Amino acid sequence: MAVIPQLESSQIKTFMEAALAEAKAAGDRGEVPIGAVIVKDGKIIASAGNRREEDQKTDAHAEMHAILEANAKLGTWRLEETALFVTLEPCLMCAGAILNARIPLVYFGAQDKKAGAVTSLYSVFDDERLNHQVKVVPGVLQAESSAMLKDFFQSLRAKQKAEKKLRKAAQDTGQN
Amino acid sequence: MAVIPQLESSQIKTFMEAALAEAKAAGDRGEVPIGAVIVKDGKIIASAGNRREEDQKTDAHAEMHAILEANAKLGTWRLEETALFVTLEPCLMCAGAILNARIPLVYFGAQDKKAGAVTSLYSVFDDERLNHQVKVVPGVLQAESSAMLKDFFQSLRAKQKAEKKLRKAAQDTGQN
Repeated sequence: MAVIPQLESSQIKTFMEAALAEAKAAGDRGEVPIGAVIVKDGKIIASAGNRREEDQKTDAHAEMHAILEANAKLGTWRLEETALFVTLEPCLMCAGAILNARIPLVYFGAQDKKAGAVTSLYSVFDDERLNHQVKVVPGVLQAESSAMLKDFFQSLRAKQKAEKKLRKAAQDTGQN
Repeated sequence: MAVIPQLESSQIKTFMEAALAEAKAAGDRGEVPIGAVIVKDGKIIASAGNRREEDQKTDAHAEMHAILEANAKLGTWRLEETALFVTLEPCLMCAGAILNARIPLVYFGAQDKKAGAVTSLYSVFDDERLNHQVKVVPGVLQAESSAMLKDFFQSLRAKQKAEKKLRKAAQDTGQN
């Protein structure tokens, strides 16, 4: 039987804030701002932000990198007795990796209505047909996580609009 | 719209045989024998076998390693216009990675009734709510793939039984 870590509400807040700091750092690097940390025995053992554009690797989601870092630190693919904190609901790939790693407890911030595999499109953590289940706590610092994503996409759209305007102006100049 | 590669039946057989060779090599290294290759423009651009025990990494499934190798080769997380061949039905993590990589076509060998996310427990490749769908062809060289897995687990059980017997004999000797 999996041992589910017991965490106090002040710890939960602290760890999700650490995940949000990773998300912010990812956003500052031009990535979609998503961050994750993995905790064992009350301490952060791995933390990562989304790096998909920088790395150009399919697996470069925050959760996957945090899992790989925890694997390296603990020397095993099994991450029993850990908890994972992530600012956005995991996708199928990351939820599958969490199941494969035997992580027993996941806290997440905002829901991902388009691709979330935990509460939105699927509930894979509750699937009794699989050889592992995961306790999930959604909505932790949800407002902060959602605001960060919303700001990022608003800035991105504004930037794209400005670039389009510049291209248009350059074309018009070229035609005259 | 995703471009789905067109492959002849002789090519399909050749590529699945290459995936089976990766599976065999994995089995020879003591891993569960699962192998995968990724094909683009009629050529193999990435191939990998399961390495979970050697690497002690959660993501060390054949498909994930093949995807990462293809990412590195093509310089992008997007693997459009490729086809992935794998000897066993992908799990949630690998199926999610295939979706995230925008791979349009997957051939697999044996079904995984306990963890398969493509035809067995889930049908995530047909999910119209997601931003990508994958054409899937199951059962390619299924007998060969199943036999390899069956042989592996039979040998493993026989080895475990022999080890148990040896331990028992050592204990009995110690007690006398």
